Amino acid sequence: MSSETAMFGLIGKIVTVPGQREALLRILLESTGEMPGCRSYIVARDPADPDGIWVTEVWDDPQSHRASLALPAVQSAIARAKPLIQEFAQHIATEPVGGVGLAAVGRS
Amino acid sequence: MSSETAMFGLIGKIVTVPGQREALLRILLESTGEMPGCRSYIVARDPADPDGIWVTEVWDDPQSHRASLALPAVQSAIARAKPLIQEFAQHIATEPVGGVGLAAVGRS
Repeated sequence: MSSETAMFGLIGKIVTVPGQREALLRILLESTGEMPGCRSYIVARDPADPDGIWVTEVWDDPQSHRASLALPAVQSAIARAKPLIQEFAQHIATEPVGGVGLAAVGRS
Repeated sequence: MSSETAMFGLIGKIVTVPGQREALLRILLESTGEMPGCRSYIVARDPADPDGIWVTEVWDDPQSHRASLALPAVQSAIARAKPLIQEFAQHIATEPVGGVGLAAVGRS
């Protein structure tokens, strides 16, 4: 991470088409392998909503996040994920400061 | 992580007493050093709320999270943090499945 720019975070809730949560979880997990600048990308079930998924992300900076959307693996995941998604119920941008579990991923 | 039990996650928004966000961030970051079973604990500013902090956590299981609250460092942090907190505006339990940035912390 450059010391000049702040990290960039996202907290999002996705609601899937009924019954498609596990399928979407698999797609989300597959596509996170090689994302330059990605320091954390965790997917979770919402125990209170059978179709709810929470995604929490930390990136070196907003540019790294934006660039990831153009990666072939991510483009492929987006294409397969779209039909499974009913709505993005929450989408919160954050400015991560620190903590445990921030992968030391260099930019490429 | 035991394969029998699911991981346990929390997504929370804390609103501080006006002007106390940086002080609370420092306390939260200090207290995260040695927490058995903690796989991710990231604190972030809310860019849309000058007193807002988001905390996202992943634990091996609910027991690890509960046990952390009794650790001397965490007890001390809670005591110092309390006067700085106005409210817990959100508190969402999750069941993390996987992703990037899950520290491989063994239980002690």
